Amino acid sequence: MKLFGYWRSSATYRVRIALALKNLPYDYEAVHLLKGEQNSEAYRAKNPLGLVPTLQTDDGALLVQSSAIIEYLEETFSEPPLLPGGAIARAQARAVAATLASEAQPFGNSRIQKYLKNERGFDADAMNDWMNRWPGGAMAAVEKMLAHTAGDYCVGDVPGLADCFLVPQMYAAHRFGIDVSGFAKMNEIHERCLKHPAFEKAHPDNQPDAVTS
Amino acid sequence: MKLFGYWRSSATYRVRIALALKNLPYDYEAVHLLKGEQNSEAYRAKNPLGLVPTLQTDDGALLVQSSAIIEYLEETFSEPPLLPGGAIARAQARAVAATLASEAQPFGNSRIQKYLKNERGFDADAMNDWMNRWPGGAMAAVEKMLAHTAGDYCVGDVPGLADCFLVPQMYAAHRFGIDVSGFAKMNEIHERCLKHPAFEKAHPDNQPDAVTS
Repeated sequence: MKLFGYWRSSATYRVRIALALKNLPYDYEAVHLLKGEQNSEAYRAKNPLGLVPTLQTDDGALLVQSSAIIEYLEETFSEPPLLPGGAIARAQARAVAATLASEAQPFGNSRIQKYLKNERGFDADAMNDWMNRWPGGAMAAVEKMLAHTAGDYCVGDVPGLADCFLVPQMYAAHRFGIDVSGFAKMNEIHERCLKHPAFEKAHPDNQPDAVTS
Repeated sequence: MKLFGYWRSSATYRVRIALALKNLPYDYEAVHLLKGEQNSEAYRAKNPLGLVPTLQTDDGALLVQSSAIIEYLEETFSEPPLLPGGAIARAQARAVAATLASEAQPFGNSRIQKYLKNERGFDADAMNDWMNRWPGGAMAAVEKMLAHTAGDYCVGDVPGLADCFLVPQMYAAHRFGIDVSGFAKMNEIHERCLKHPAFEKAHPDNQPDAVTS
């Protein structure tokens, strides 16, 4: 398999965690978002939305959207599972993931931030309000959901789908000034994840295209 | 089962289509978004984000997020399936759904429109640009994805998960002035869906809380 992605992209980070939790080997090709490589004709042919990641399977299929890619990995490489047993627990894990994927991450995406700043004149205060109201508000809802579902990780005591979404959202929150100080359960799970070898392997700073200096 | 929703909510509409395609009976309780009922303490206890829908299962579990709810229905009531056979086709169906759920719908949500107009001074031109650039841009990407996946419906010749997301997005597009005239495949599938009994049953105008006069 080959993953087209970017070190700091939340959605790429999610897929890297899933691949690492399942111990799956893959090639990695960086798509430099700051150079606009996601908008090249060649990349758009792989991913019509011009977003990362794209996963190329061994038989050449091109899969897009991190949640669809992770469900594919779960169906194709079942061990260890990223979803719990039991339909209700599975729905809870997917609900945490979907809340972060649909209500938090899109509003903090760099193309949206750029648009609001450059084309709609959002100043620092407006951006801060935007980030804390929308991504921050969704994270506050997830904190409440975790009160019903979490053990050591987001759903129960095993790292899985919801954690693949939580950790990149926490990374983005720290990067973009979302105040997460009130989210005790999320902070606790995030800290635990960061010490887990699969999450360490998947961390942005540990990717070949990372710029950390 | 009991569905808490709102007639014009895209996410509620998605779940109604899935329930109708699977021929599942359910009770319906309207949550009047315009009256702010989604923000009541009683409703927030069911759905921490204050969004519709919420599905209460027969054993009392409260499920949130339309994509998680539909995956739950698919796992629990397998016939007829809403996902195709084959891991790649399933990933394609989920990718169409996720693109609409994460890149189109959130930016057109009424709470976001209200915020941009009332708190950030977006005028009609700015709203039009916003709606056509973000939800419209995501829909343009889906049109390209459908070139690889569609038959009579979004993925193959049977209505399923991706159609549950496409039809409400088309409804929202018409409502909010997103130009869909260039999306030939989406228009064709949308027209076909509207004539299907399950989609007709799920249509906003046919709900008990509809205000159509």
